[in-house]
Amino acid sequence: MKAAIVYKTDGILNRVKKVLESLNISFELFSEPSEELENYDFIVSIGGDGTILRILQKIKHCPPIFGINTGRVGLLTHSTPENFEEVLKKAVKSFEVEEFPRITSHGILALNEFAILNRQPGKLMDVTIKLDGAEVDRLRCDGIVVATQIGSTGYAFSAGGPVVDPYLECMIIVPIAPFRFGWKPFVVDMNRKVEVCVENAVLIADGQENVGVDGKVVISKSKHPAVFFKKDRRIPELFSKVKGIC
Amino acid sequence: MKAAIVYKTDGILNRVKKVLESLNISFELFSEPSEELENYDFIVSIGGDGTILRILQKIKHCPPIFGINTGRVGLLTHSTPENFEEVLKKAVKSFEVEEFPRITSHGILALNEFAILNRQPGKLMDVTIKLDGAEVDRLRCDGIVVATQIGSTGYAFSAGGPVVDPYLECMIIVPIAPFRFGWKPFVVDMNRKVEVCVENAVLIADGQENVGVDGKVVISKSKHPAVFFKKDRRIPELFSKVKGIC
Amino acid sequence: MKAAIVYKTDGILNRVKKVLESLNISFELFSEPSEELENYDFIVSIGGDGTILRILQKIKHCPPIFGINTGRVGLLTHSTPENFEEVLKKAVKSFEVEEFPRITSHGILALNEFAILNRQPGKLMDVTIKLDGAEVDRLRCDGIVVATQIGSTGYAFSAGGPVVDPYLECMIIVPIAPFRFGWKPFVVDMNRKVEVCVENAVLIADGQENVGVDGKVVISKSKHPAVFFKKDRRIPELFSKVKGIC
Amino acid sequence: MKAAIVYKTDGILNRVKKVLESLNISFELFSEPSEELENYDFIVSIGGDGTILRILQKIKHCPPIFGINTGRVGLLTHSTPENFEEVLKKAVKSFEVEEFPRITSHGILALNEFAILNRQPGKLMDVTIKLDGAEVDRLRCDGIVVATQIGSTGYAFSAGGPVVDPYLECMIIVPIAPFRFGWKPFVVDMNRKVEVCVENAVLIADGQENVGVDGKVVISKSKHPAVFFKKDRRIPELFSKVKGIC
Repeated sequence: MKAAIVYKTDGILNRVKKVLESLNISFELFSEPSEELENYDFIVSIGGDGTILRILQKIKHCPPIFGINTGRVGLLTHSTPENFEEVLKKAVKSFEVEEFPRITSHGILALNEFAILNRQPGKLMDVTIKLDGAEVDRLRCDGIVVATQIGSTGYAFSAGGPVVDPYLECMIIVPIAPFRFGWKPFVVDMNRKVEVCVENAVLIADGQENVGVDGKVVISKSKHPAVFFKKDRRIPELFSKVKGIC
Repeated sequence: MKAAIVYKTDGILNRVKKVLESLNISFELFSEPSEELENYDFIVSIGGDGTILRILQKIKHCPPIFGINTGRVGLLTHSTPENFEEVLKKAVKSFEVEEFPRITSHGILALNEFAILNRQPGKLMDVTIKLDGAEVDRLRCDGIVVATQIGSTGYAFSAGGPVVDPYLECMIIVPIAPFRFGWKPFVVDMNRKVEVCVENAVLIADGQENVGVDGKVVISKSKHPAVFFKKDRRIPELFSKVKGIC
Repeated sequence: MKAAIVYKTDGILNRVKKVLESLNISFELFSEPSEELENYDFIVSIGGDGTILRILQKIKHCPPIFGINTGRVGLLTHSTPENFEEVLKKAVKSFEVEEFPRITSHGILALNEFAILNRQPGKLMDVTIKLDGAEVDRLRCDGIVVATQIGSTGYAFSAGGPVVDPYLECMIIVPIAPFRFGWKPFVVDMNRKVEVCVENAVLIADGQENVGVDGKVVISKSKHPAVFFKKDRRIPELFSKVKGIC
Repeated sequence: MKAAIVYKTDGILNRVKKVLESLNISFELFSEPSEELENYDFIVSIGGDGTILRILQKIKHCPPIFGINTGRVGLLTHSTPENFEEVLKKAVKSFEVEEFPRITSHGILALNEFAILNRQPGKLMDVTIKLDGAEVDRLRCDGIVVATQIGSTGYAFSAGGPVVDPYLECMIIVPIAPFRFGWKPFVVDMNRKVEVCVENAVLIADGQENVGVDGKVVISKSKHPAVFFKKDRRIPELFSKVKGIC
């Protein structure tokens, strides 16, 4: 078995190495994520949720990821610098994993969300939203977020979306700063096809990858999920952590 | 085949009878819904969404319902007094139906939602919310709504919940007037068990049935779904209608 | 000079007495607020914001109130059981006071808000709202809150209203659980006349006094303000405390 | 008396000229607003609210403005292409005007709002907010809107702010897409000094003027109000129009 260690900072790197050595697992180090990560049996990420999202931007076929949180919220991570030794050992030994679907558009993948924003900050853009080809809304706003349930605690959260069960496969559609008396987030089955029609906008995947878009942006479930080591108390932890986002 | 006609008002009753007669279907009339409705092959409801919810309060085993909307929003209905003749004929001939899960608590069923409210209007109540036994929130509010996805356009809608895909099985947990700087609706898999701990409250199912509750209120998916004739354009119609709620 | 001490609990009563004695101020004790409080030079309230609101329900002409917070949030109070001795002495010596306007309806006064609620919990009521005689909104909801700026952290806060500067005289109109795709709180000059037209409702002043109402409820600024000892850092304290309401 | 006509489109220009000629008022035409507008006795704006905001960007000393709405919402305008002849004649004859305060920062004026946005779309920025020098909030968001009461129907409206009485002088502080479990708009007296501390952001006045900012942005009431011809039913019209923003 061969592991990859992706680290944003190297403060606890030696301690991570020792854990893997104690498990007789060889490893390579990555200060920056790359496509090569697909070729490892699992990935240890030292950093925050952003580090994991950057890893995922590089890979289609995803080895199980184990996250050690050195960032802020850490909803995607499994452990802290204080407790990772024990948690990591246990995770690798049992090797129980779980998949979370990603969504795709324009050949890019996203675990959290696609944000479609006006190129010019502070200008309204006209947006039409379709579900499976049928128009469901038309509005003026700063942008649109189409998130997965995992992304319900990312940009969709900021834009006014609900907190969603990580195991309920769905997409959440939330406008950013809609110029409108009323609006609601929409939560839809992930097997639907979401179309967002805009002019001259930018599509941002998980706050990482940007691509210019003009016209129809189609977002749908990808066949390349993100894979993580299993986290036992994911749900109570999630709800407890989101209340602390302030 | 034997149909039941439940009517809130009798304005179009004769026209409904004629349609059934033309299809050679015998029928009985109900000015008030009752348990007996379980024994019919299908039910035609003349009224609004409230009439359908009242029908559902009376029955566990649900024959397919066809709704003719003489009320306001009509999200559960299939047709209007203008077009029901054609739509009803087509529905009965093809007899395509679809199920929507109900939730249950204290032996009562709800298609839209359970609302747990303080007995004394305008007084805060202390609420603890658990998911599958794990506490996920604790707050002071006027009440709590636990809705199905179908109920996302009912009381949960008023309380600040998202609009949810009618085919995405889930529960939506929304506080009513929470005394709190921040809050979010929670959307969770319907197979979870939601517990709401309150003191001296009232549990209201679909705005119809009331029962006093004190302590733990457990809400979970029922094995008795509501059954409706299939509606082709349910999703675009839903999103279009909710925008008109004003 | 003669003071009244209103106490909800008697834990620190003796310490309060000693402070007043040290200032050579005579006093009377009230375990329940009454109209007689109008006849004192100032009032010391031992309790929470609720205790102060109960005092204000009893009096039109309001002597300056000094609050020692033994409750939860304590936005109307001046001190805690830990620091009141010093703060109270200083307040009485300088005797700097400030007034906050109250609003009135049906012969009742409110410092925080009037809530107009359906008698039957969980039932929608039809509401029409007028400003200075002109209709500005019509909706279905559980109730309507009309608050002062001080009440922006009370029921209006729970219902979804903004946090308002305690020195900006205004009324905040917020629906409770409006059945509507969109809504906004309204913030209006306090010299306007707010009319809320409802059927068979209950009017609740500051969560204390209830009166049945049917038809037009007119709410306007009262000529009987609430009077408090001055609080130096009222604004930063307010914003800091509201963020802690959870 | 000398008038300036600022026109975005020239469809009704001749009809406007005729009204002024019939009143024996000389005029000059401006296809683009400029500083020179300060030197006229009044301004007729043919366009939408954006045209009026562009005029106001050019002038400190503001002659009374009369707006003919050829745009969308038209909250700042007085008349439509259908009825302006009569309304304009009446306005010029009575010459009743009203002032609405503007706010200022970095030497720029705004009638509606200042928006402080991240230069990079979709990236969170750290923001600290102070009132009269005292910190009142600290958060991560896409941006901050500081609006006047008139701007409560502009960007602040989109960002989640309340609708405010046009005659209640205040500032409304609303974050855009705050990454936070809870937040509230703040409504404060316009005589306060609002400070927003950010890094490497852009300050946008009324959606028109942009300037780079880094560090402390101080926003306060300007001594140069905007001046408009009086509008009789401003309040009911406002509330009726905002409900139509969809």
